[in-house]
Amino acid sequence: MKPVKLGLIGCGTVGTGVARLLINNRHLIEQRTGIPLHIKFIADLDTKKDRGVAFEPGILISNAWQIIDDPEIDIVIEMIGGETLANDLIKAAIEKGKHIVTANKALLAKHGNQLFKTAACKGVDLAYEASVCGCIPIIKTLRETLVSNQINSMTGIFNGTCNYILTQITEAQISFKDALKQAQAQGYAEADPTLDVEGFDAAHKLAILTSLAYGMHINFDDIYIEGISKITPFDIKLAAEFGYCIKLLAISKNLGDRIEARVHPTMIPYGNILSNVRGTLNAININGHAVDNLFLSGHGAGMMPTASAILSDIVDLSRNLQHHAAARIPLMGCQPPDIQTMPILPITDILTRYYFRFTALDNPGVLSSIAGILGKYEISIQSVHQKGRKTDGSVPIVMMSHSAKESYVRKAFEEIDSLEVVEEPPVLIRIEDGFAQD
Amino acid sequence: MKPVKLGLIGCGTVGTGVARLLINNRHLIEQRTGIPLHIKFIADLDTKKDRGVAFEPGILISNAWQIIDDPEIDIVIEMIGGETLANDLIKAAIEKGKHIVTANKALLAKHGNQLFKTAACKGVDLAYEASVCGCIPIIKTLRETLVSNQINSMTGIFNGTCNYILTQITEAQISFKDALKQAQAQGYAEADPTLDVEGFDAAHKLAILTSLAYGMHINFDDIYIEGISKITPFDIKLAAEFGYCIKLLAISKNLGDRIEARVHPTMIPYGNILSNVRGTLNAININGHAVDNLFLSGHGAGMMPTASAILSDIVDLSRNLQHHAAARIPLMGCQPPDIQTMPILPITDILTRYYFRFTALDNPGVLSSIAGILGKYEISIQSVHQKGRKTDGSVPIVMMSHSAKESYVRKAFEEIDSLEVVEEPPVLIRIEDGFAQD
Repeated sequence: MKPVKLGLIGCGTVGTGVARLLINNRHLIEQRTGIPLHIKFIADLDTKKDRGVAFEPGILISNAWQIIDDPEIDIVIEMIGGETLANDLIKAAIEKGKHIVTANKALLAKHGNQLFKTAACKGVDLAYEASVCGCIPIIKTLRETLVSNQINSMTGIFNGTCNYILTQITEAQISFKDALKQAQAQGYAEADPTLDVEGFDAAHKLAILTSLAYGMHINFDDIYIEGISKITPFDIKLAAEFGYCIKLLAISKNLGDRIEARVHPTMIPYGNILSNVRGTLNAININGHAVDNLFLSGHGAGMMPTASAILSDIVDLSRNLQHHAAARIPLMGCQPPDIQTMPILPITDILTRYYFRFTALDNPGVLSSIAGILGKYEISIQSVHQKGRKTDGSVPIVMMSHSAKESYVRKAFEEIDSLEVVEEPPVLIRIEDGFAQD
Repeated sequence: MKPVKLGLIGCGTVGTGVARLLINNRHLIEQRTGIPLHIKFIADLDTKKDRGVAFEPGILISNAWQIIDDPEIDIVIEMIGGETLANDLIKAAIEKGKHIVTANKALLAKHGNQLFKTAACKGVDLAYEASVCGCIPIIKTLRETLVSNQINSMTGIFNGTCNYILTQITEAQISFKDALKQAQAQGYAEADPTLDVEGFDAAHKLAILTSLAYGMHINFDDIYIEGISKITPFDIKLAAEFGYCIKLLAISKNLGDRIEARVHPTMIPYGNILSNVRGTLNAININGHAVDNLFLSGHGAGMMPTASAILSDIVDLSRNLQHHAAARIPLMGCQPPDIQTMPILPITDILTRYYFRFTALDNPGVLSSIAGILGKYEISIQSVHQKGRKTDGSVPIVMMSHSAKESYVRKAFEEIDSLEVVEEPPVLIRIEDGFAQD
C-alpha cells in the first residue's frame, strides 16, 4: 500500500514521543496494519536540538505552514498547543482536505464545536483521543464501545497533577503548598499551576466528554469548577475516619432534560475503585444503561502514554484513508443534525450529600444552633462528630449530611458563619457514594 | 442510508439482550451512526417464548440456515455457543460473504486460527469483542488503542464466577463448596461449574488475547490451567496477614522469544488495583511499552453488558459496510503473513515468587529440615511464619519465597512431602507483585 504521509507540527515532549513511536516501531505498526506511515516533515522552531530520535535528514523544518501547503501530506498532527496559531493551522489544514490529529483540549473545549462543524463539511477526520486522559481510550470507548448505551453518568479523575498532590497530602500528611512544591520538583506541575490545581484542565476534558456522551453542545462557562488549593490534611484525616478519601472528581450526570457537569474536590468511600487511583494516574467510571459501570485507568499525561494515544488516532485515520472511509465515525459521536443543546444545571440546584466542618467555641448550645439552622433549610444530618478540643477553646464540629440542595446549604452556611460562636468560615466538601463498582 | 440487515442466530439470554438494544435503542444508535440497523430474522428453536421485546411479526424463525441462505442479510450474529453447529454456521456464512459477530470464546480459542484465515481470504469481517470479558473493550484496545505498543504483559480477572466465589470466601469466610452453592443460587455459576471454577473459561479468553497481543498462533493445550477449587478460607486468611489477596488470574508475559500463558490462583498485594475487583466483575491490566499500565474493569458477563459489546461489533461492521471498508482491521490484529508462532514456556520453567504452607509435627528440627530441602533447590525464603499449634500436635508453617524456578519448587515439594514429620500435602500459591499501578 501507498505510505500515508504525515506532518507533525510541534516537537516538544509529546511530539518527540510521537516521532519516536513512528520511527522506532515502524515495523511493528506496519505488521499490524499493513500501512506504511511516513513522517514527511516535523515543524518546530528549534530544528537543532537533539531529541534522541534518528530523523531522516531534512525532516525538521521551522515553518509549520510548509506542512499545511504540502499537497502530499495526508494527516497533520498538531502538537503546539495554545488556542490561536493552533486554531489557524487546523482550520487551514481542514480547508486543504487534510485530516487532523490533535491533543489540544483547551482548543477543543472552547472552539471544538466550530472546528468539528468545519471538518464535517469538508468530509475530513479530526481525531482527538489524546486530548482527554492521555492513553486511556475514552473517546473510542464513548464513540464506539458504548454506541448502543444511553450514558447515565461519568465520574473521573482527569488531572494527574491534582491527584498526585492529593495522594501526597493523604499519604505523607503534608500541606497543599508542600505537596505542590513536590509536584513541581517531580515535573508533575507547571511553574504556574493554576490551570491544573484550580480544576480548569479537568473541566476542559469534562466538557469534551460531556458533549460526546450526550450528543450535545456545551457552554464551557456553565461548568462549575472548584480546585484543590483549599484542601487541608486535617479534612483528609477526618474524611478517612468516616471511611472516605478526597479526590478531585469531574462529574457529569444525565438527568434527562438537563445535565450536571462539575469539577470539585469530592469525598468518595474507600472501597470504591476510584479511591485506589493513586499518584499521577487518571481514571474514569462510565455508567451506561446496558454496561452498568465500565472503569478505565492509566497515565493521563507524559511523553509516551500521550504519544501512544496520538498513534492510535493516526492509525485510525490511516485505516480510513486506506479504505476511502474518512469520517467513518461522526466526530462528535453523533450525526450533526441530531446534536442538541441541553442546559447544565447551576451548581446551586444540585442535590448531593455533604461533609461540613464548623469551627466553633466549645459552648453548650453551639451544636443546637448549627443544627437548628441546617434544619430550617431542610438539610438533615446523618452523623456528627465533635473532635478533640483545640487549645484556644474552639472545636471542630464535623457533619455528614443526607442529600441536600446546594442553594439551601449555601444559605445555611451564611447564617451559620454569622453566628458569634463560629470562629472560622465553614468548610464544605461534596460526597459521591453512588457509583461504586460491585 | 440503506439499512444494514441483521440475522441473529440464538435468542437466549444474550441474544434477547441484543434484540432489546437493537429494537429499544434503534433511534439512539441511528442518531449516533447515521446507519439504520434492521433485524430481518432471529433464529431460535423456541419461537413462542415471551422474551419481553416487541418483535415485528414473522421475525422469529426456527431454522438458522434460513439466515445463512438469505442474500439480503449483511451481518450474522452467532449466539448459540458450542463448537459444532456454530462452527458450521459461521463457515457457511463466511462462504456467502456475510460478516460475522460472535461471542463464542471456546470456538475461537480452539478453531479461531482456521476461521480467521477463511474470513480473511473471503474479505469478510469476523468480530468477537463480546467473546472476552463481556463489556470491557479489550479486543478494541489491543487492536486499535495499543497498535503502536509492544505488549509486555497482560494480567487479568477473566472469570466472574471464580471472582465471586473468591470474594465470598474472603469476605464471608466460608468454604469453597458453600461459596459455589451461593454462586449457583445467584445464577453466577452453572449446575456443572467445571468450565468456570477449573479455569478453562479464563484460559479460553487468555488464548484469544495472547494471540492478539503478540501477533501469534497459540496452541490452547500449552496454557497452564489451575482452578480455585482447592483454595481454603485458611490460606486466604494467611495471605491477608501478609498483605495479599487471592484472585484467579490469567497471566500472559512476553519474554521476547517465548511467552508465558497461565491461569491459576494468585496472591496479589492489597493496594494493587486488581485487588479491588470484587464480586462478578472482570478486569485486565495491560502493560505496553509506551502506555506503561492500562487498566480496564467492568461486567464480564450478563445479558446487557455482553449485548452491549455485541452491538459495538455490529456497529463497527455496519460502519465498514457503509464505507465499503470490510476487513479495515486485520482480524487477529496483525497482517496474516506476519503472524508468528512463539512457544509457550512450560509451567515448570517459569520463575515466580511463591507462598508455601506446610503442615508438620511441632518438633524441633522440622523447620530446619524443610528449609534445608528448599535451600538445596535454590529456593530462598523471604519470610516464615509458624502459626498457632493445632490440637493434634501439627502446625502450619507458612513461607513466602523469593523468585524461584517452578521445576525446582516441585522437586523440593516431593522431598518435603516424603518427610515423616510432614502430615499433609504442601500447599503452593504463586505470587504476582510486579504489575502495580503507581
